Amino acid sequence: MSRSDATILPVALGDRAYDIHIGPGLIDDPNAYAGAIAGRDVLIVTNETVDPLYRSRVETALAHDHRIDTLVLADGEATKSMATLDTVTTRLLENRCGRDATVIALGGGVIGDLAGFAAAIYQRGIDFVQLPTTLLAQVDSSVGGKTGVNHPLGKNMIGAFHQPRRVLADIDVLASLPAREFAAGMAEVIKYGLIRDAAFFDWLEANMAAITARQPELLIEVIRRSCANKAEVVVADEREAGERALLNLGHTFGHALEAELGYGAWLHGEAVAAGMCMAADTSHRLGWLDAAQVTRIETVIAAAGLPTAPPATAPAARIHDLMYRDKKMSAGALRLVLLKDIGHAVLESDYGATLEATLARYLAA
Amino acid sequence: MSRSDATILPVALGDRAYDIHIGPGLIDDPNAYAGAIAGRDVLIVTNETVDPLYRSRVETALAHDHRIDTLVLADGEATKSMATLDTVTTRLLENRCGRDATVIALGGGVIGDLAGFAAAIYQRGIDFVQLPTTLLAQVDSSVGGKTGVNHPLGKNMIGAFHQPRRVLADIDVLASLPAREFAAGMAEVIKYGLIRDAAFFDWLEANMAAITARQPELLIEVIRRSCANKAEVVVADEREAGERALLNLGHTFGHALEAELGYGAWLHGEAVAAGMCMAADTSHRLGWLDAAQVTRIETVIAAAGLPTAPPATAPAARIHDLMYRDKKMSAGALRLVLLKDIGHAVLESDYGATLEATLARYLAA
Repeated sequence: MSRSDATILPVALGDRAYDIHIGPGLIDDPNAYAGAIAGRDVLIVTNETVDPLYRSRVETALAHDHRIDTLVLADGEATKSMATLDTVTTRLLENRCGRDATVIALGGGVIGDLAGFAAAIYQRGIDFVQLPTTLLAQVDSSVGGKTGVNHPLGKNMIGAFHQPRRVLADIDVLASLPAREFAAGMAEVIKYGLIRDAAFFDWLEANMAAITARQPELLIEVIRRSCANKAEVVVADEREAGERALLNLGHTFGHALEAELGYGAWLHGEAVAAGMCMAADTSHRLGWLDAAQVTRIETVIAAAGLPTAPPATAPAARIHDLMYRDKKMSAGALRLVLLKDIGHAVLESDYGATLEATLARYLAA
Repeated sequence: MSRSDATILPVALGDRAYDIHIGPGLIDDPNAYAGAIAGRDVLIVTNETVDPLYRSRVETALAHDHRIDTLVLADGEATKSMATLDTVTTRLLENRCGRDATVIALGGGVIGDLAGFAAAIYQRGIDFVQLPTTLLAQVDSSVGGKTGVNHPLGKNMIGAFHQPRRVLADIDVLASLPAREFAAGMAEVIKYGLIRDAAFFDWLEANMAAITARQPELLIEVIRRSCANKAEVVVADEREAGERALLNLGHTFGHALEAELGYGAWLHGEAVAAGMCMAADTSHRLGWLDAAQVTRIETVIAAAGLPTAPPATAPAARIHDLMYRDKKMSAGALRLVLLKDIGHAVLESDYGATLEATLARYLAA
């Protein structure tokens, strides 16, 4: 595929509108960056894994027009900290960057969240451009404007909404992605079909073998349609008051599983995949999904190389507590994202004892 | 004066609109807070000086409806740091505060900037209410939404735009304010007259003796008209692209003086007062102000108890360098806020050698 195959998806957020470019060869193409970098100064923020793969290619694409510095951080969730945030802003100040400087986030979700937050608070907000290097980052964190770091007392507790100036989702970077990480990204892709796009779910069902073989044309469609769905939700609900909550299908279960198993034991996408199957089970118990629909959901998730259930050894009572601990941070009852149908999610707190029945089915007494 | 004398000034920022209440007895009045605090949890952030004066009164006003915790920080500019910011967000997390919690900033500009920034980034943004306890904070930082902390490499370099839910400017707190601090606040008040409100300047000129005697009716008018002027500028230019720069009259000179004298040797308002006189001198040299107008400006500033010139011992070349150092952080030439007339400021970079002439007049060779 050539550069001309790139797809451009606009995210219509008024004076914070931006485009997502999806296609091959974007990282190397100066035209892909054109118009997205206002000033001379650029700080690339990346990690030790991504640095040797792509950093020099970004630098080459931009060297003609910009003064470029690169900050290479440790790989992993621990980098999403206040201390590392300070490292980024300090580098910007050492370089005497003004308000027209641009931060480029070159990496996965951790780098995007951290570098985006640094851009959000440096001199009360400067531009940033995202070059997501994982499927998860391309379909999830490239839309929505959520940036931030972790606090020792809670994940993602410190942050800001800050929209990127552009996202370059280069599908070439997916070729070298480990199978497990690719699958974890697919969990969020399947999620978009389940919550609001039944036709996309059908398409995923029909094409999963070719998608997991990473055929370029199909990858573009996977990313485009995922981002388009997320963008529609975010545009309608930028500050996360209503429909945006539906993006959390499988996440309340999933976060509890991650906390119980220890962060990193399961990838986020794997926990979400199991959580979506549990949400489908609860929805079935409420009479909303029939058995055939639940089977279709489990089959697609399994075909993507993802788990359809949590480890049976996890204690149900503990998972229940962890789900409610999440809830205590906000007012009101524990609301779950459940499915009225494939392609139709709702936020529901009136599920009675079906939640306990689901936990009892999947987990240890 | 009774509570019914309170004035309410709306700041029309769309879905971030809020009211500034100005009057006596507000701190003690539960009605003044009504509708501004959405949830149960409140964290009061204050400092060691203000705490014994007002904290218990705020707690008493709110105790019936809210769960209140108070964080008392050291007084002074050093509190505006990333480390103290972390102290605030940690306390919010320790208290298990959710997105419906409210931060109350009880203090001067340092507390307002710090507590407002903590509210801006806690869970990507929660409400905050300002109870400014200095004249400067009431007329300056209560409008505009600028929040943030200092970095070892630069003041106010890390921050966010985050509007308060309400501002309670209780004029009773001004009675105990030291004369020098009151005067420092008046520098910003006079500034509003100079840059865009000639009638207000005339009124200040006619009433300065009664204002410095702190007559309550006059204090309300001082605060209301200052905030109304700043609000008009901010509403037109929330993200600081254009007219908002005019609010910096006297500040480019003033910041250089503060840096040269050592922060704290002169109060910010004192440096701005001297800076405004220097800007008036440059404007006179450009033929924009006549000598009588310059004298009127100096007379009002002196009547407020403020300096009309910098220490003559400061070296002109050094002040010149410091003014340009500010400039290097942004693109383009050094632009100064100058006066075409009393009540009419402009942003000008084409002032030729008049700047050097002004520096030579006021400073050492």
